[in-house]
Amino acid sequence: MTRSTALHTDRYELTMLDAALRDGTAQRRCVFEVFGRRLSGGRRFGVVAGTGRLLHAIRDFRFGDDELRYLRDEKVVDATTLDFLADYRFTGSVTGYREGEVYFPGSPLLTIEGTFAEAVILETLALSILNYDSAVATAAARMSVAAGDRPLAEMGSRRASEEAAVAAARAAYIAGFSATSNLEAGRRWGVPTMGTAAHAWTLLHDSEEDAFRSQVDALGSGTTLLIDTYDIAEGVRTAVRVAGTQLGGVRIDSGDLPIVAGEVRAQLDELGATGTRITVTSDLDEYALAALAASPVDSYGVGTSVATGSGVPTAGLVFKLVAREAADGSWVGVAKASAQKASHGGRKAAFRTLDAGTATSELIVVSDGFEELSTAAEHPDARPLQTTLMHNGEAEAAALGTAGVQAARAHHARVREELPVRALALSKADPALPTEYREAV
Amino acid sequence: MTRSTALHTDRYELTMLDAALRDGTAQRRCVFEVFGRRLSGGRRFGVVAGTGRLLHAIRDFRFGDDELRYLRDEKVVDATTLDFLADYRFTGSVTGYREGEVYFPGSPLLTIEGTFAEAVILETLALSILNYDSAVATAAARMSVAAGDRPLAEMGSRRASEEAAVAAARAAYIAGFSATSNLEAGRRWGVPTMGTAAHAWTLLHDSEEDAFRSQVDALGSGTTLLIDTYDIAEGVRTAVRVAGTQLGGVRIDSGDLPIVAGEVRAQLDELGATGTRITVTSDLDEYALAALAASPVDSYGVGTSVATGSGVPTAGLVFKLVAREAADGSWVGVAKASAQKASHGGRKAAFRTLDAGTATSELIVVSDGFEELSTAAEHPDARPLQTTLMHNGEAEAAALGTAGVQAARAHHARVREELPVRALALSKADPALPTEYREAV
Repeated sequence: MTRSTALHTDRYELTMLDAALRDGTAQRRCVFEVFGRRLSGGRRFGVVAGTGRLLHAIRDFRFGDDELRYLRDEKVVDATTLDFLADYRFTGSVTGYREGEVYFPGSPLLTIEGTFAEAVILETLALSILNYDSAVATAAARMSVAAGDRPLAEMGSRRASEEAAVAAARAAYIAGFSATSNLEAGRRWGVPTMGTAAHAWTLLHDSEEDAFRSQVDALGSGTTLLIDTYDIAEGVRTAVRVAGTQLGGVRIDSGDLPIVAGEVRAQLDELGATGTRITVTSDLDEYALAALAASPVDSYGVGTSVATGSGVPTAGLVFKLVAREAADGSWVGVAKASAQKASHGGRKAAFRTLDAGTATSELIVVSDGFEELSTAAEHPDARPLQTTLMHNGEAEAAALGTAGVQAARAHHARVREELPVRALALSKADPALPTEYREAV
Repeated sequence: MTRSTALHTDRYELTMLDAALRDGTAQRRCVFEVFGRRLSGGRRFGVVAGTGRLLHAIRDFRFGDDELRYLRDEKVVDATTLDFLADYRFTGSVTGYREGEVYFPGSPLLTIEGTFAEAVILETLALSILNYDSAVATAAARMSVAAGDRPLAEMGSRRASEEAAVAAARAAYIAGFSATSNLEAGRRWGVPTMGTAAHAWTLLHDSEEDAFRSQVDALGSGTTLLIDTYDIAEGVRTAVRVAGTQLGGVRIDSGDLPIVAGEVRAQLDELGATGTRITVTSDLDEYALAALAASPVDSYGVGTSVATGSGVPTAGLVFKLVAREAADGSWVGVAKASAQKASHGGRKAAFRTLDAGTATSELIVVSDGFEELSTAAEHPDARPLQTTLMHNGEAEAAALGTAGVQAARAHHARVREELPVRALALSKADPALPTEYREAV
């Protein structure tokens, strides 16, 4: 079931549209760009996510009777604008970084071209999706680095708004997580789901043993038992007594995890449950994961920190007009003049320069005009970063749905390999690659 | 158009349901409670929001063909459980704090009573909604205190996931904001909307003067012109030249705001535009608002910080089983034993004790059993904090829709008046009221 996304829009976009339809500028062709001025929180790289979601959301950006009635009743726009919106369908083009790509300050993550009228009203929708999803993916990638080869499950749905939680599960999966607890993310985006039991399960029963026995009866001895409702050592003993030494796993959700994990591993081994895996899930973030690297833990569940961007809940991306048609039909690059919020006008082509397979810079070639910009041919050691995401209003099928998620996850794994080692450290620092601007020749 | 909320659920809830339907515990009556162990970020009080949204979401928590097919295909649950879910409808009761109420550590914000089967699967939905909305409302209340009588508009949609943005606009309005930029929040929840133009509007035109003239033609001289695209002093001159001294307002979105606001006020006054209002909107949070108290600013727009909870993006509320029926039909209070995550078992009644109209404590009366707890009669100087939100699966109509939002906003304004002055300071501190537990007599 689809729902119109058309009112996920700040009112000023429709106010501008209304005035532009009166003064004739509505039909000027425009280039809008989504980029970040900086990487917040001392991140060394960002990860683009949400692109596939945005393509779906642009498709559903249609003004139906309900939307039009609200705008008319509230006198947001006049009758001419209502007519325009009733027929609205984005017919322009969208180019941008592939979902899962890494990015740096100034990277032109998304370029939307069309008339002012059709493009300006996508601002809030595009930013909402890309800002949240990229914040989660950026945090998730750091966690994935910190977890190394151990599987990471995303369990943060309860700490994000209900639809944001679905987006978070999807973004974390793209950035290297292996599964989510969120069933809607499983249904909608094909993310693998996992989960067995909460403390309520143990508390529901008359004893921990009853609870474990019932769970093993239902799910088999390969299940994971939550052992910290009462006493952990007693919980481990009960778990192995009930499930046998073939018990699949135990989960620890509290305590001083490096110490507790070591104790539980020793106890399991002593009881003969040498193959039983240990999962830990208590308020982990990338730093806690790094601190557990030497502990006998087999897999992790991460909640709050990934769904809230681990201290950076929004990527801080902006949506700016960078070029437009002038009254005489020529193109002009435009940008706000503010010192604090300066941006680079003009259409941009972006490349990642490489030296023996390792990334060395983010190269952004700027053109004031509208001519097609130089391609990889002129930069033999550089990888072009932009791809066509939407052409004449039609989305690239490969970027949509569950296939798009799988492609993004694979792309992220690939491009992370290109990053220099310094990009993978967790401490706060400058971006791992410099952004270099060059004028188009 | 409604969409099922049923898969906004962590997989372990359905796994527990599946096992409980096999072992007979599914029908045990249970009391689940939503509460926070602490106020994150050194907040002095929390603000409950999302309650009305949750009541709608519980109504839409139904497993249709799409949801059931996914669960069957993925083998999440067995056939018996699928049959149970196909007929699922929550028939229990929900009591809790009124939306807009303030809360403290341990406050029983929501109590859900029903069978284990019907209540346990609401965990993620309830927490997602209450955690995000309450985080936003708590931050928004602090901003509202800092803004004093000056109107505050919520403009953070672009910094939150698209549906979260709607919830944020609603929560901020409940906590004292006067409007939002988000049109969907206007349509769905009746929040007043506002907004005029972005920098793109000025950049679209051949000159700032053209842009201002067109805006004034469309919206009248009472509109608000954005004056900082190029040079602020020049922007003010152009604005007054185009719109006249009756210009409604100017908006400043960059610069050192206390200084710039003073300069713009002086310039406007000198030009005779003494009634023109100044709105500022650049990366404000509660501290920046407080710092602007002495500046000649008439209204504020707040974006990122409110939509992301100003450093606390989730309220950290948990959903715990606190009492259940035993095999013999008697009631037992239950709680996890972990030292770090200890909670109080038992059913709870909550009161705010008052001294001459000023709140003095959060009084929580705990019962291990299931008897109805003491009411205000026994606590003559205390205000009972809980109300019935849902009875036999039917939501209180007054808490729903736009009327519920208005009631919550009014309730918040009222209860904020009860708080001691120390609750309203912005610096980090302990909760403004102590939480006191008492055993039911």
